[in-house]
Amino acid sequence: MKFKQLSVLALALLLPFAALAEDMLAPSLVPSRPKNLIIMIGDGMGPAYTSAYRYFKDNPDTEEVEQTVFDRLLVGMASTYPARVSGYVTDSAAAATALATGSKSYNGAISVDTQKQPLETIMEKAKKRGLSTGVAVTCQVNHATPAAFLSHDESRKNYDQIAASYINSNADVILGGGQKYFTPAMLDAFTTKGYQVLNDFSQLAAVNQTKVLGLFGEVQLPWAVDEPDAHRLSTMTNKALTLLSQNPQGFVLMVEGSQIDWAGHANDIVDAMGEMDEFAHAVEAVEQYVRSHPDTLMVVTADHNTGGMSIGRDGKYAWYPEVIRAVKASPETLAAKALADDNWPQLLADGLGFTLDDDLKTRFEHARMQGKEVLAHAIKHEIDLRSNTGWTTGGHTGVDVQVFATGPGAELFIGNQDNTDIANKLISLLPKPKKATATTVPVPQAAPAPTTVPAQAAPAPTIPAQADTAINGH
Amino acid sequence: MKFKQLSVLALALLLPFAALAEDMLAPSLVPSRPKNLIIMIGDGMGPAYTSAYRYFKDNPDTEEVEQTVFDRLLVGMASTYPARVSGYVTDSAAAATALATGSKSYNGAISVDTQKQPLETIMEKAKKRGLSTGVAVTCQVNHATPAAFLSHDESRKNYDQIAASYINSNADVILGGGQKYFTPAMLDAFTTKGYQVLNDFSQLAAVNQTKVLGLFGEVQLPWAVDEPDAHRLSTMTNKALTLLSQNPQGFVLMVEGSQIDWAGHANDIVDAMGEMDEFAHAVEAVEQYVRSHPDTLMVVTADHNTGGMSIGRDGKYAWYPEVIRAVKASPETLAAKALADDNWPQLLADGLGFTLDDDLKTRFEHARMQGKEVLAHAIKHEIDLRSNTGWTTGGHTGVDVQVFATGPGAELFIGNQDNTDIANKLISLLPKPKKATATTVPVPQAAPAPTTVPAQAAPAPTIPAQADTAINGH
Repeated sequence: MKFKQLSVLALALLLPFAALAEDMLAPSLVPSRPKNLIIMIGDGMGPAYTSAYRYFKDNPDTEEVEQTVFDRLLVGMASTYPARVSGYVTDSAAAATALATGSKSYNGAISVDTQKQPLETIMEKAKKRGLSTGVAVTCQVNHATPAAFLSHDESRKNYDQIAASYINSNADVILGGGQKYFTPAMLDAFTTKGYQVLNDFSQLAAVNQTKVLGLFGEVQLPWAVDEPDAHRLSTMTNKALTLLSQNPQGFVLMVEGSQIDWAGHANDIVDAMGEMDEFAHAVEAVEQYVRSHPDTLMVVTADHNTGGMSIGRDGKYAWYPEVIRAVKASPETLAAKALADDNWPQLLADGLGFTLDDDLKTRFEHARMQGKEVLAHAIKHEIDLRSNTGWTTGGHTGVDVQVFATGPGAELFIGNQDNTDIANKLISLLPKPKKATATTVPVPQAAPAPTTVPAQAAPAPTIPAQADTAINGH
Repeated sequence: MKFKQLSVLALALLLPFAALAEDMLAPSLVPSRPKNLIIMIGDGMGPAYTSAYRYFKDNPDTEEVEQTVFDRLLVGMASTYPARVSGYVTDSAAAATALATGSKSYNGAISVDTQKQPLETIMEKAKKRGLSTGVAVTCQVNHATPAAFLSHDESRKNYDQIAASYINSNADVILGGGQKYFTPAMLDAFTTKGYQVLNDFSQLAAVNQTKVLGLFGEVQLPWAVDEPDAHRLSTMTNKALTLLSQNPQGFVLMVEGSQIDWAGHANDIVDAMGEMDEFAHAVEAVEQYVRSHPDTLMVVTADHNTGGMSIGRDGKYAWYPEVIRAVKASPETLAAKALADDNWPQLLADGLGFTLDDDLKTRFEHARMQGKEVLAHAIKHEIDLRSNTGWTTGGHTGVDVQVFATGPGAELFIGNQDNTDIANKLISLLPKPKKATATTVPVPQAAPAPTTVPAQAAPAPTIPAQADTAINGH
């Protein structure tokens, strides 16, 4: 009798949560502390980017608008403002510091506080607990976001200093661009320390153990739309997952879709959508990993919004993603090619997917005479007008960003939170430090250590059948 | 033994949800079908508005940035695109149709489908089930949003036709503006049908029973910043709650912060923040009602985003809400007063909270000679530059909007959803129709009718003490 009564109670308790994404509960139904933590950052990916991406990917031949991976995983939002000294609009350094350390700092800070003192990062905490760590990004590996996870510096601009510090990060996987910042002597030091050092993307496939430093571009990696089938970020992400999985203690991996932000700064909707697609592929790869590794939590967010991009402009209630989908290369690449080709009008017509009328040809001709940058700007402006895309800035804006999560602990990220909360929640999910320092790293009641929960509470088979049905039935 | 084992199981099941806002679970802990449904719509209130409002309300003398009511209640987001025939950017009519009926239609549609056939609204369904209904808005009561809840029309522009149809809505409370659309004969018909008809806001306090039609403005109500202590929307909302609460069967109330959108269309950050504040007061009033009436669900959302407003512009990483807070009246009102006053430079300096230098005085003088609208535009532009606020359009944009909820059933709105899902979830929470039409109004498994759950499953006293502690402790 009591069993029946309580199983109904358990059902009643579960029912209100049946609307949660199934992925958040499946496959074990009973969340426990995750072994692996994956934080993915869409740099500059404010809410308009994920909405626009849905319409960019929409199949116009079907009645419904198809969901994206972001729609599947949305759980909450986060505020992004930096320390008060820097006002309400963050840069990538202060935002990455918040996400890596759980503390706010000034714009430009690389995991140092407002007094320029180092803040311990989640990567350092993970290392102390025996976990492996890694980063995979499409910018130079010493750019602001990865830097805040692997270094400490009073300024994001100290690229050389930051690169030089990486030898001390002990990170197990470092993948991205940035060859120009690593001298032969620095690379030798990595090799001496046991790292495989790669400088060609094709070398990555054969790597089968850590540690590895892969630098696949002089600075950043190419625009994704210029290499439509490369999917370098998801390739690097999958490799990082394979390598880091070898540590039975678990790992912390940071993956960044770095150049969404760069496209936003350039007010370039073609590359914004291309980089969103690149990032979405990586998010899907990690989502797949979490499905097959139910001991893994993934959290996806953005560090801030870039460009003030809007889906619609100038009073017109419309957005035409088909214009963007038709463009075959980045505006920057199209402009460079047009400068080197006498038959540039045909080249641009082919690349843009529409015929240039005389007026547009004249405008492009005028821009072409002023050089690549001006022509690229003219191309982007024409695409903005035809797709009806708006922008307000070449910098960042202060709108909240979204938070996406799946895996054990995902429910901690439901609702509104600050960017520092994201880091603090992730840090709270790390195993306890080997020495007793529980007071400095409190473990929230919501995710008790396995030892504090009687063994019989956890196993899935004890869950009443009704609860299972209720969840799957929704 | 079994009791202990299962209470631990119940605890384990509850633990992952401890991070949900306490308000979503308190006070009964065991959600059931709500008796009353309140849907609140911030017209045009995209994500940048709620973020900006946080910084607008921030106390600069404290280290932390204070949370707003929107931060407390956030649970998810919603896509807003209209029926495919109207592309990806909705107008208020199609969005309100989605929120009132659960079906998408074309831009301009007032609760009719793409074939211009009527779609049954949540208000009509509620009436069939014996519930009371009401609307409280700051625009004319026959404007697009309230119209989609109380009427059916092939075009939102048919204001007279929509107003004339309201006599048949049988709504118990209709509060807002719109005197010019209701002829004496129409008002007589309302009186004959038993409505108290009000045309002065001071009459509202004495009303103590339904039905009531209150029209407190020729068209819309005044800008909130021009009447800083009036809080008409929360006053109307509280009155609507008092009146509708008299029905023991329950009620459905729609409250709209209508003029957030109007400020967005006008690219007017002063009134945007003023109307956000007006709406936030109403949301807080309803939040308080839900706290004292645990049988009530409130859901807050926006119909779309307006203006492409951004917190930051022109490459500068900053936003200065103190500029906006210092303005003492709406730009429209300031411009009207400045036109009628020879000492306009002093009047504008006082109203704007900053000294006009010679250059600005010359620009304002030039604008003033061109009339009220041009001067208001110049004032708004100056405030935008000083506060660093950006805009991309005088129309709408397609970014997803936020969803906020508390009360029984609030958990249904967690995560990503479409605007039609919001209506369909709310409709699913209505009691079953009196005649057997369960197939057309399916009740989701997540919210079973009280009769399908054994009585012992529901009462709070049977919840294990540990579960209670776990929730309150987070």
